[in-house]
Amino acid sequence: MSLSLNQKTINRATLPEAVEACARAGIEAIGVWREPLADAGLERGAKLVRDAGLRVSSLCRGGFLTGDDREAALADNRRAIDEAAALGTDTLVLVVGGLPPGSRDLAGARERVADGIAVLAPYAGAAGVRLALEPMHPIYCADRGVLSTLDQALDLAARFPAEQVGVVVDTFHVWWDPRLDAAIARAAGRIASYQVCDWITPLPPDALLARGLPGDGHIDFRTLGAAVSAAGYRGDVEVEIFNADVWAAPIDDVVADVVRRYQEHVTP
Amino acid sequence: MSLSLNQKTINRATLPEAVEACARAGIEAIGVWREPLADAGLERGAKLVRDAGLRVSSLCRGGFLTGDDREAALADNRRAIDEAAALGTDTLVLVVGGLPPGSRDLAGARERVADGIAVLAPYAGAAGVRLALEPMHPIYCADRGVLSTLDQALDLAARFPAEQVGVVVDTFHVWWDPRLDAAIARAAGRIASYQVCDWITPLPPDALLARGLPGDGHIDFRTLGAAVSAAGYRGDVEVEIFNADVWAAPIDDVVADVVRRYQEHVTP
Repeated sequence: MSLSLNQKTINRATLPEAVEACARAGIEAIGVWREPLADAGLERGAKLVRDAGLRVSSLCRGGFLTGDDREAALADNRRAIDEAAALGTDTLVLVVGGLPPGSRDLAGARERVADGIAVLAPYAGAAGVRLALEPMHPIYCADRGVLSTLDQALDLAARFPAEQVGVVVDTFHVWWDPRLDAAIARAAGRIASYQVCDWITPLPPDALLARGLPGDGHIDFRTLGAAVSAAGYRGDVEVEIFNADVWAAPIDDVVADVVRRYQEHVTP
Repeated sequence: MSLSLNQKTINRATLPEAVEACARAGIEAIGVWREPLADAGLERGAKLVRDAGLRVSSLCRGGFLTGDDREAALADNRRAIDEAAALGTDTLVLVVGGLPPGSRDLAGARERVADGIAVLAPYAGAAGVRLALEPMHPIYCADRGVLSTLDQALDLAARFPAEQVGVVVDTFHVWWDPRLDAAIARAAGRIASYQVCDWITPLPPDALLARGLPGDGHIDFRTLGAAVSAAGYRGDVEVEIFNADVWAAPIDDVVADVVRRYQEHVTP
């Protein structure tokens, strides 16, 4: 496994700036987000990353399959699959979506996700892209992602070929799960992405930005990473941090800190 | 099932004020907290509740078994058990505690909980009190409660006789769980307390006060309550709300709203 910088960690950087920051810090892989990729232009962005010799560990993100406009959501996800293929990554991270506005039908929302994945999986497979289902911390169940545990994501992924649908293991989202060890072992062959991010307390006021750099919080990354490795995962390890303070800091400082934290807290 | 007012919903009321508010609203049961009970005096408080003809659906709360001073925690829990017995309730709610300061050993913290329950369960049984393990939303795993799912609480409870150790089903804490239906069915005979509280978005800045009155959020109380009822639960339904706005409102207004919300959103 080796370090990949998820672009969200340096949220205000353009794609060219992010690529340059990786090069300066000697980071060999990057997790790209669709919005800055669109800003750079798909072809130009893809060339930029390729010319810099960077691996693209994932494209973030598709999903949001629970809303009422199903066709629009599917069309957007097909575009995201095409973008991932053009960018040369085999991994498209999916945040599946929360409850539709005004709905309390959690089981129904989860069915919508399964229905959407059934439509998209063959399309992704044909493009050489794997849909990476991201179970999200239950704090986001209502408004972001109704996939709440790794087991639940694996239950859904298991309906499809492993080359079409995998899962994301993001420490922030799954660290609390009493069944995590068994779920990670069960995920062998299905882990499409491994992301690290710490759980900090007290939780910052904005729950969407409540994430810390490894070492700032409560997660034991070595133990968790060993389980992911024992499940056969050999891909990149994305450091992905949503945090207002991190986003406000100078980009090169953040990247240097990411490298240091990775070495101190994440590497085996 | 019938409505019980958990005292935390009217957080600034003294025990005498809470008892009077229940009487005025025709509420027949109350969930008492230890701090206002201590303020009233145990014997006086117990007499007050008894003279008002109120059932005490639970005493909140014991627990916090993960810290380094094990003997102090056990002693405090024995006192809580004695208080529950004196108050005439058979249910002591336990919030088990989070990670010890500076620790990342989640498995170790969970073992400390199990060890503490093993010591306390016979003591509780002898006092005619049942320890009610409360699985807490994973948002509180680090700092409040390392029991994160109903299944996990049931796995622990199952080591002890059902009259000594049960579980709390609190909608706020468990609503997101993809295995909830099966877990509630499995909880038959172990549900010591059923508490209702809504999950609201956006999540308020203080995660400890991020709870809503039934109807203000995303939880389907009727479906969840039907599952609890199908599991054989026939006890009181506590409305327990941690929310700064609710706490700031006039007490009788809050109590009237609780009665209305209960009828509109919770009763079958």
